[in-house]
Amino acid sequence: MKSQQATLVSERTLPFKVALAGFGTVGQSIARMLCSKGWPELRLTHIYNRNVERKKVDWIPSNVKWTDRIGDIFSSDADIFVELIGNLSPAEEWIRRALSSGKSVVTANKQVISHYGRDLSELAVRHHQYLGFEASVAGGIPILRSLRDGLVGDRLVRILGILNGTCNYILTRIENAQIIFSEALKEAQELGIAEADPSADIDGSDAQAKLAILCRVGLRRNIDMKGVQLRSIKPLEPIDFIYARKLQCTIRQISKAEIDKSDGSRVISSVQPMLVPISSPLANISGSQNVVVVEGEYGGETAFSGFGAGGRPTAVSIMSDLVAITRANSLAATKQSNNPIVEADTTCDFLAPHFVRLVVNDRPGIIASLAQVFSQNGINIDSVLQEPGWPKTALPFVVTLEECNTSNMREALRKVEKLEFNAQPPLWLPILDQSKQPQ
Amino acid sequence: MKSQQATLVSERTLPFKVALAGFGTVGQSIARMLCSKGWPELRLTHIYNRNVERKKVDWIPSNVKWTDRIGDIFSSDADIFVELIGNLSPAEEWIRRALSSGKSVVTANKQVISHYGRDLSELAVRHHQYLGFEASVAGGIPILRSLRDGLVGDRLVRILGILNGTCNYILTRIENAQIIFSEALKEAQELGIAEADPSADIDGSDAQAKLAILCRVGLRRNIDMKGVQLRSIKPLEPIDFIYARKLQCTIRQISKAEIDKSDGSRVISSVQPMLVPISSPLANISGSQNVVVVEGEYGGETAFSGFGAGGRPTAVSIMSDLVAITRANSLAATKQSNNPIVEADTTCDFLAPHFVRLVVNDRPGIIASLAQVFSQNGINIDSVLQEPGWPKTALPFVVTLEECNTSNMREALRKVEKLEFNAQPPLWLPILDQSKQPQ
Repeated sequence: MKSQQATLVSERTLPFKVALAGFGTVGQSIARMLCSKGWPELRLTHIYNRNVERKKVDWIPSNVKWTDRIGDIFSSDADIFVELIGNLSPAEEWIRRALSSGKSVVTANKQVISHYGRDLSELAVRHHQYLGFEASVAGGIPILRSLRDGLVGDRLVRILGILNGTCNYILTRIENAQIIFSEALKEAQELGIAEADPSADIDGSDAQAKLAILCRVGLRRNIDMKGVQLRSIKPLEPIDFIYARKLQCTIRQISKAEIDKSDGSRVISSVQPMLVPISSPLANISGSQNVVVVEGEYGGETAFSGFGAGGRPTAVSIMSDLVAITRANSLAATKQSNNPIVEADTTCDFLAPHFVRLVVNDRPGIIASLAQVFSQNGINIDSVLQEPGWPKTALPFVVTLEECNTSNMREALRKVEKLEFNAQPPLWLPILDQSKQPQ
Repeated sequence: MKSQQATLVSERTLPFKVALAGFGTVGQSIARMLCSKGWPELRLTHIYNRNVERKKVDWIPSNVKWTDRIGDIFSSDADIFVELIGNLSPAEEWIRRALSSGKSVVTANKQVISHYGRDLSELAVRHHQYLGFEASVAGGIPILRSLRDGLVGDRLVRILGILNGTCNYILTRIENAQIIFSEALKEAQELGIAEADPSADIDGSDAQAKLAILCRVGLRRNIDMKGVQLRSIKPLEPIDFIYARKLQCTIRQISKAEIDKSDGSRVISSVQPMLVPISSPLANISGSQNVVVVEGEYGGETAFSGFGAGGRPTAVSIMSDLVAITRANSLAATKQSNNPIVEADTTCDFLAPHFVRLVVNDRPGIIASLAQVFSQNGINIDSVLQEPGWPKTALPFVVTLEECNTSNMREALRKVEKLEFNAQPPLWLPILDQSKQPQ
C-alpha cells in the first residue's frame, strides 16, 4: 500500500521541500517569498509549467528544477505539491496523485475544492497528508482557518459574503459614477479586473463555488453547488442605487448560506444582488475587495475583509498553509472536529423585505393594480418611492414590501410582469436585515 | 520535578476536564456552553469563586464541584484551568501555579498577558502545556489566532485597531447626537457600557495593554507597555466631528503599532484619537464593536471586526482556545515559530498630516501668526476650514497641516498654545492615511 510508504507530515524534517505547479502571477509571488529569507522552514525545489522554457527567470536559484513533465514532480522527493494550474482537469487528478504519492497539497483551486473538497480531504487523511485550500476563497483573507479554528468555539448559523471582486467593482462604479452596467463592465475589462468572458463573475457562478466551500467549512454542511440559486447583476441600473440610497442601503452581489431554522438539515443559499444597509460591513468595502460576515449562535456577527484576489494576497494564504504543514500535527486541523460535516439540501426560499423597481408608462391606477397583486399573494406594501425628473413613458419608481417569502415574491412578480403598464421588466431584490447583536 | 509528572497535552484522553475560576458573566456563558451538547470533547468539572455559595445555580450538573478554595483546583485532576478573575494579582500567580501543576491555561486577562505573556508562554512550553489568551484582545474576534496562523504567510508591518468599545461608543455618540463628552460618558455609564471610573478606557490604558499583546503576537515585537504613548479622548468636542466630516473623516480612538521602517528594532506605538477616512474599516464599526486592521508586506490590509466585549463573544474565544487544546499538538502553535519574538524599543514619533482645532477670540492676523509658527517648525499649512455661525469671542476653526513629524507638531503646538488669541487650548490630532493596496 502506497500510503504506508508515505512520509507522515509530522515525521518530516525541516526545511520542507516545495514543488510548484503553475508559474503565473500567484506562482511567481510564492516563488519570490520562498526564495526570500523569511521562511527558512520551506524550500522551493521544483517548478512545473507547460512549455517551461519560456517561464525561466534568473532570480530562481539554480538548484531548483524546472520541468514540463508533471510526472517528475510526483516521483520527486518534494514534500508538498502546490497546485496553481486552475480548472477541474487535470488539476483534480494531479491533487489525487500527489496525495496518493505521500505529498501534502496546497491549492488555490475553488473549482476542485467546491466539487471534490470533502472527498479529497478524506483522501489526504487516509494518506496522512494535509490538504490546504485557504487561497481558494477570498484570496488573502484567512477566512477558512478563522472558521475552522478561530470560531470553533461558536456554532455558526449564517455566512454572508462579497466573494467576487469583479462584481463589487462593477457595482461600485455603477453607483459612484452613475454609469450603465455595460460601461462599468467595459471599464473593468480595460483595467484587467474583469475577464474577456465575464459570465462566471456576473452570473454568480464564481461566487457559488466559494460559497459552497465556506458552507462546508463554516456551517459544516456539504451542499450540492447546483442548489445554490444564482441571479445576475446585469439588470441593475444607476437608478436602483439612487433608490437604494433613499432606503439607507446600497446594492451588492451577496453570497449567502444560512442554516434553515425550521429544518437544520437544509441550507438557504443564493448568490444574487441584494440591498445592504450602508452601515453593514458588506457595504463598506471598496473596489475589488472581498468581505465575509459570519453569524454565530453565541458570538454574534464577526467580519473579515481584505484583498480577495491578486498574486501577492493569494500567495499569503498559500504560504500560511505551507507553514501550517511544517508545524507538527497540522494534520489535526483537517482530521479532527467534534462538529462533523453533514450532507444538506439547499433551498433558495427565505423571508426578507423586498425592493421592486418598476419602469412604467405612467397612467392612473398603477399603484392600485400592484397593491392588488401583492395583496392577493399575502404581501404588504411598505412604501412607494418616486424620484422626480423622469419621462412619463419610462418612469422608474420603487415599491418596498414587508417581509415575505422569496417564493411568494417570485409568484407575485410573475403576475406583475404581465401588467400592461410596464415599459421594461420589473426588478426585485431582497433587502438584507440589519446585523444582529449577541444576546 | 513537577513538570515531569505532568500529563502532556497530547497524551490526555477526551473529554478534557475544565476548571473555571470566576463565575461572572463570561464564566457563566462558558459554563452554559460546556453544559450544552455542542462540545463533547470538553467537560466542566470545577467552578471556583469567592463566597461560592451565593453563586450556585441549578442548571450546573451535580457532579461539578463548587469551591472557594483555589488550592482545590490545583490539586484536582482538571486538565485545563480557565482564569476569569481579572487583574494582576492573584491571577498571575494562579496561572503560574496551574501551568506548573501540569494544567493548560486559558485566560481573558489582558493585564496579566500584556505584562507577563512572554514569560508565561515560555513557562507553558517548559511544562508541555498550552497557554491560550485569545479572549484577552478584542473579545469574540479571533484576531490572535489569525495573526499567528492565518497570516503567518505574510510579514506584518502595522496593526491599527479600535480596541476599546467604551470609547468607540462615546465618540460615535458625540458625533451622531452632537452632545458633549461628559453627556456621552454619562449615557454610556447609564447603559453599563462605561464603568463608574472610566479613566482606563478614556485615557487609553485599557487599549494600551491589548495593543502590546497584538504587537507581540502580530509584529513579533515585545515592547514595554509604558512606552506606548497615550492621549485621552476627553478634549474632543462635537465641532471636531463636523470639521472631520468636511475632510471625509471621522474621529476614533486608534491603537497603532507599526514597525519603524528606519529602525526595525523600534515600534511606533500610540493610543490616541485620530482622524480616520470614512472609507476605512476603522470608521465603519458601530457602538461598542472592535476592529483590527493589519497591514502585511505581501497581502496589504486585512480587517477583522466584531464584538469586542460581552459574556458570550468573550466565551467564544475561550471555547476556541479550549478546543485548540483538545486537538493534538496545539502546543505547536505556542512553541513553534520561524519568526521569533524580539525585544523592541518604542517611539511615539511618526509622520502624518495633522488636524489642529483652535477656538479663538477673533481678530485680524490670527492665520498669519499661526502660519509663522508652523513655518518656523518646517510645517506647511494644507487648508484652513471655518464653519459659520459661531460667536467671535469663541470662534472654532481648523487648520490642516501637511505630513510632518509628531515631535515637530508637539513643539509647534507648544508655541501656538501661548498665542494670546486662544479662547481655549488648541487640540491636535494626526490624520490616518488611506489604506494601502498590495503591490
